[in-house]
Amino acid sequence: MKRDQSTLYAGMEAGGTKFICMVASGPDAVRAQISFPTTKPEETLGRAVSFFKGHEPFAALGIGTFGPCDLNPASPAYGCLSTSIKPGWKQADVLGAFRRAFDVPVGIDTDVNAAALGEYTWGAGQGLDMVLYLTVGTGIGGGGVINGRMMRGLFHPEMGHIRVPRISGDNSFSGVCPYHGDCLQGLASGPAMEARWGKPAAELPSDHPAWKMEAQYLALAVHNTICTLSPNRIILGGGVMHQDHLFPLIREQVGRLLNGYIQLPMILERIDEYIVPPALGDRAGVLGAVALARQTAEES
Amino acid sequence: MKRDQSTLYAGMEAGGTKFICMVASGPDAVRAQISFPTTKPEETLGRAVSFFKGHEPFAALGIGTFGPCDLNPASPAYGCLSTSIKPGWKQADVLGAFRRAFDVPVGIDTDVNAAALGEYTWGAGQGLDMVLYLTVGTGIGGGGVINGRMMRGLFHPEMGHIRVPRISGDNSFSGVCPYHGDCLQGLASGPAMEARWGKPAAELPSDHPAWKMEAQYLALAVHNTICTLSPNRIILGGGVMHQDHLFPLIREQVGRLLNGYIQLPMILERIDEYIVPPALGDRAGVLGAVALARQTAEES
Repeated sequence: MKRDQSTLYAGMEAGGTKFICMVASGPDAVRAQISFPTTKPEETLGRAVSFFKGHEPFAALGIGTFGPCDLNPASPAYGCLSTSIKPGWKQADVLGAFRRAFDVPVGIDTDVNAAALGEYTWGAGQGLDMVLYLTVGTGIGGGGVINGRMMRGLFHPEMGHIRVPRISGDNSFSGVCPYHGDCLQGLASGPAMEARWGKPAAELPSDHPAWKMEAQYLALAVHNTICTLSPNRIILGGGVMHQDHLFPLIREQVGRLLNGYIQLPMILERIDEYIVPPALGDRAGVLGAVALARQTAEES
Repeated sequence: MKRDQSTLYAGMEAGGTKFICMVASGPDAVRAQISFPTTKPEETLGRAVSFFKGHEPFAALGIGTFGPCDLNPASPAYGCLSTSIKPGWKQADVLGAFRRAFDVPVGIDTDVNAAALGEYTWGAGQGLDMVLYLTVGTGIGGGGVINGRMMRGLFHPEMGHIRVPRISGDNSFSGVCPYHGDCLQGLASGPAMEARWGKPAAELPSDHPAWKMEAQYLALAVHNTICTLSPNRIILGGGVMHQDHLFPLIREQVGRLLNGYIQLPMILERIDEYIVPPALGDRAGVLGAVALARQTAEES
């Protein structure tokens, strides 16, 4: 297939709560889009296949999936989830359904790596050597694009599971992560907020003390990420980050944690350009999957 | 200059305690080497220049320096230290002395990124997509090589300054980092061990409780690094890691922290191949500087 700027690609963001499917050539050229709740694997994946079948042809398909997922092409479990926390999805073969159904290259990576690629391609990360994307919602996850490539190594990033110190006074809450209890996700994900404060985060007023604590935990994550990776920009997305008032709180706490150690204008004077929401909003993930499809087509 | 496998390069590891200078074409072909204590900047840098002057010609020079250091070629402070903890070295122009003295390309990066490059080129990281190097000594630092490139972004990694939870029972020690108090370096560097236990780490017997605690802190750092970056291998070097008995303790604690979340044989069955000492030993840093010189020559 001849490819140009108008070539269509299929992208799917497979989340633990919902799936979003899109056929597009870019953010301003979306041919079709659908979203539906994540139910059982067979039903949910089948629904995505049907949607894409109705919108052929496209040059390639990209999948940004929740995880953990086996991303090693040499592994027999390539494209399958492993220890998913989502009931019924352990070992689900996310990639297989699409490889069998479509005769185009299919690429897969994590939902957060895809979101980072989306922002790198069309959003807040354009032209940067290292773009980091943290999502805070049902879970906490991180991904990134380094020199144009999504972050991969032995596995893929699982940033929600880093351990951070307890915020002063927060000693009794045991955390909600079934694997680690009080890892970052256990202390600061949406479900952690709901368990800690007795109601969904979205229902807590903006002057509730929950938000300062949430900002303190997320600032610890951002601080550790800066020290570990030194990204050129950090993008914070996901449902919890819809609370815009979190951004100034997080930036202030990050400055306090760094405490003048990194003497750069971007940190000291322009931190509001450094820690930002996704320019693509909630479409970062699915558009990133479209960008992954394009990258997959170019390499195959 | 025609370059081949026998081409000579100059490498310098500029540490806060000592400098190591080498002229070599690789680990098995070292022409000359010297090491001397880090005193005042002018004296120490002058000594290095003199050594290299006596061993010309070489095709390029590579510097792996302690930091923080400005590594942005577009910055007026390129190659200068910024907020160094070492007295007298704040704003020292490490790169300038060599650029003025030698008519060859000069590359600079952090000492730990250089060590990672050394291991990637000739040691325990050969052929791997993502190699991480953590050094534990006078300070704690981290660096890495991702797809053949040293880790850079807005700045360079400063992994010693991540925040980790306190080990159970370790509540009274305030930490020795002048910027952050109880960051990782503040709690687990060589000087932190000495301050905590009243004698240098090297004098503590291997059954002293200090070592279990040290392993627990370093395991937290390794765990967070795995979750953030998912490297293909983690190399632990530096003076404190000369205590070989730390390795099994750290591996055990990392397994405990991950708690089965990452279902890979490399983690579950072969963690002794995953968390390893540098194959180049204490020469990783200076040989990495030689490798950096070679990379600089190839790109200029």
